[in-house]
Amino acid sequence: MRKVAIVGTGLVKFGNYPERGIRKMAEEVLFEALTDAGARPEDIQVAYCGTNGFSSDTPDMQGPISFSQVGIAGIPILQLKNGCASGSNAFREAWISLQSGLYDVALVLGIEKLSAPTMEMIKLAASMGGGDGELEGSMGFFPPGIFAMFARHYMDDLGVTREQLAKVSVKNHFHATLNPYAHYPKNVTVEEVLSSRPVTSPLNTLDCCPIDDGAAAAVLVSEDVLSKFKQRPVWVVGSAQTSGTYPEEGNIGDTDTTRRAVAIAYEMSGVGPTDIDVAEVHDCFTPAELMHYRDLGFCKDIQEAAYWLEKGYTYLGGKIPVNTSGGLLAKGHPLGATGVAQICEIVQQLRGEAGERQVDNARVGLTHNGGGFRQGDVGSVCVHILQK
Amino acid sequence: MRKVAIVGTGLVKFGNYPERGIRKMAEEVLFEALTDAGARPEDIQVAYCGTNGFSSDTPDMQGPISFSQVGIAGIPILQLKNGCASGSNAFREAWISLQSGLYDVALVLGIEKLSAPTMEMIKLAASMGGGDGELEGSMGFFPPGIFAMFARHYMDDLGVTREQLAKVSVKNHFHATLNPYAHYPKNVTVEEVLSSRPVTSPLNTLDCCPIDDGAAAAVLVSEDVLSKFKQRPVWVVGSAQTSGTYPEEGNIGDTDTTRRAVAIAYEMSGVGPTDIDVAEVHDCFTPAELMHYRDLGFCKDIQEAAYWLEKGYTYLGGKIPVNTSGGLLAKGHPLGATGVAQICEIVQQLRGEAGERQVDNARVGLTHNGGGFRQGDVGSVCVHILQK
Repeated sequence: MRKVAIVGTGLVKFGNYPERGIRKMAEEVLFEALTDAGARPEDIQVAYCGTNGFSSDTPDMQGPISFSQVGIAGIPILQLKNGCASGSNAFREAWISLQSGLYDVALVLGIEKLSAPTMEMIKLAASMGGGDGELEGSMGFFPPGIFAMFARHYMDDLGVTREQLAKVSVKNHFHATLNPYAHYPKNVTVEEVLSSRPVTSPLNTLDCCPIDDGAAAAVLVSEDVLSKFKQRPVWVVGSAQTSGTYPEEGNIGDTDTTRRAVAIAYEMSGVGPTDIDVAEVHDCFTPAELMHYRDLGFCKDIQEAAYWLEKGYTYLGGKIPVNTSGGLLAKGHPLGATGVAQICEIVQQLRGEAGERQVDNARVGLTHNGGGFRQGDVGSVCVHILQK
Repeated sequence: MRKVAIVGTGLVKFGNYPERGIRKMAEEVLFEALTDAGARPEDIQVAYCGTNGFSSDTPDMQGPISFSQVGIAGIPILQLKNGCASGSNAFREAWISLQSGLYDVALVLGIEKLSAPTMEMIKLAASMGGGDGELEGSMGFFPPGIFAMFARHYMDDLGVTREQLAKVSVKNHFHATLNPYAHYPKNVTVEEVLSSRPVTSPLNTLDCCPIDDGAAAAVLVSEDVLSKFKQRPVWVVGSAQTSGTYPEEGNIGDTDTTRRAVAIAYEMSGVGPTDIDVAEVHDCFTPAELMHYRDLGFCKDIQEAAYWLEKGYTYLGGKIPVNTSGGLLAKGHPLGATGVAQICEIVQQLRGEAGERQVDNARVGLTHNGGGFRQGDVGSVCVHILQK
């Protein structure tokens, strides 16, 4: 396996930007990533764009349109779409393209504009459910409902309290107050989560990730050309993607897509859960984060995950700080941008450039991003392990 | 570079199938490709789906949904979207994934259902133009208009006649009569093309590719595992993708995206235009095919391209038979399916299994697929060179 490093990142503060289209956000993050790496547009040999295209201004061909904003054209440009995991899938394809030996320098963009989608896109999204419009969307089985079922299972069968779920949101909103890129940098209390507007019982607004616009970018290079770039490397030591197996039977909230992905990534990198210093985890809804503590191997089960949260183990300063960025819940979740933004956060942490939310002596970080649902199982999960 | 072979293909006859959804078409071609290769679902290590998602029944997550129809789940599954080149881009990403050494067996699906898109999708497509909704779609600059400008340039400035353009359609419809997979297997005359319903002057309906549903699949394997599969190999000896450079000045109809892609593919494979025995070329509109004879190096200019056509050099039995399948014009153009279907045609030709449309002693074949437009330049071009 070739050694591949991240040498540049770019990120916009997530938010709702009626005045800023895809072009403008792309230009900002791509320029920032190139500048950070000390790379010129002509250094980029291949480029990947992760997006679902939920934008009114540029619903298609976001890749060529975005990259040409910073003078990158002519090279292979791909657009990937894998629901909420589109960004990390694009990152992983870029990594694979460097593994192939065909290229040495790749640029990844994750981008989405959700605040002003076309009415067409809203109707389309509404028909899709968690991804499978025919099977589940037609029955009204949507992500908030899916995760509400997870929450109900954890509460009714496994002894997790409603307050413990709320505490995921409290933690991630606290972290967001330390992150200049977060959409909602504002502390919330357990009471505020519990009294926020109901979405799907038992989940309320503050249990659910918001709707945002955002973009993130990263420059990946092979070890062979590393010396051409000015930034010190953050190595990609593990990369894995899995898709769901869609079992016909089984407990909802017990999908193994993440467990299979992280097992591959741990084996590839030679690190284990106890080596992880900081992690960005797919907390689209509060119960998801607890589920992922378990599935990433941080804890043995949901009860222990709730205990970890209560004890502050996943807070900044704890054993494994999770979602120091604020996570999807408080930094925001502009679908295609999310996976690449997670990479940006871990790179900042491993470089020691995370400011007020810096994890001391962070040497190994993990990102976990999932997308799509079918039969209660996750459509696609990407896990990356980064090391300085 | 690793040696990679195609050992299985699957294809449905292109057409309008109100009774057949994405699931059904995917199942048919994936089952056929696996059977052709002598592969089991569990042999597949990574899977790519090329589609634009213009379908009412399954607008999203077509990859996981389609592959799980034949029992393929759990593995990395990616969805790629690059306009009309989505299928060949998916094929190329699968090839790259084998080049990486991470995988040995990949499955590619190209799929699109255009005959019954959602009303939402129709409106969305109508806003996009050739891909750039903001810049060109908003001005009504659509593919038929773009290619009408090409046609006008060739006729007014370069001496190509209207009848010569029509003869591209005549040739490809003739080839389609020999192809059981073609949507329009019916001979047409020059007069019929010239008197068909006007679309955008000077182009008429029979100068334009139709609207279809379709799917195609291919199994790719590394040389290392070739012996596990029953089918004799067709080798992928050249693979290239380029994107447009979007020049601010220059003649419309003189984009160099194809020329740059084919130069890379020829160099990689060590073959040149005179070695090509059969080619599938992106004939979305009649002037496109002439343009591509030139850009693929078959001819030196558009005038010679028209001469080639008049002389029958690109007919079955000619120097370089082009679009023996019937091409986009007569086999059909279900966007995401097209690039993979081109691969299927060349594989059939190189195996000597093309029946009535078999090219004698075909040893080297080429596929050319383009997608998206901006500033009169092609968004993405893929060229593959296959050899038996």
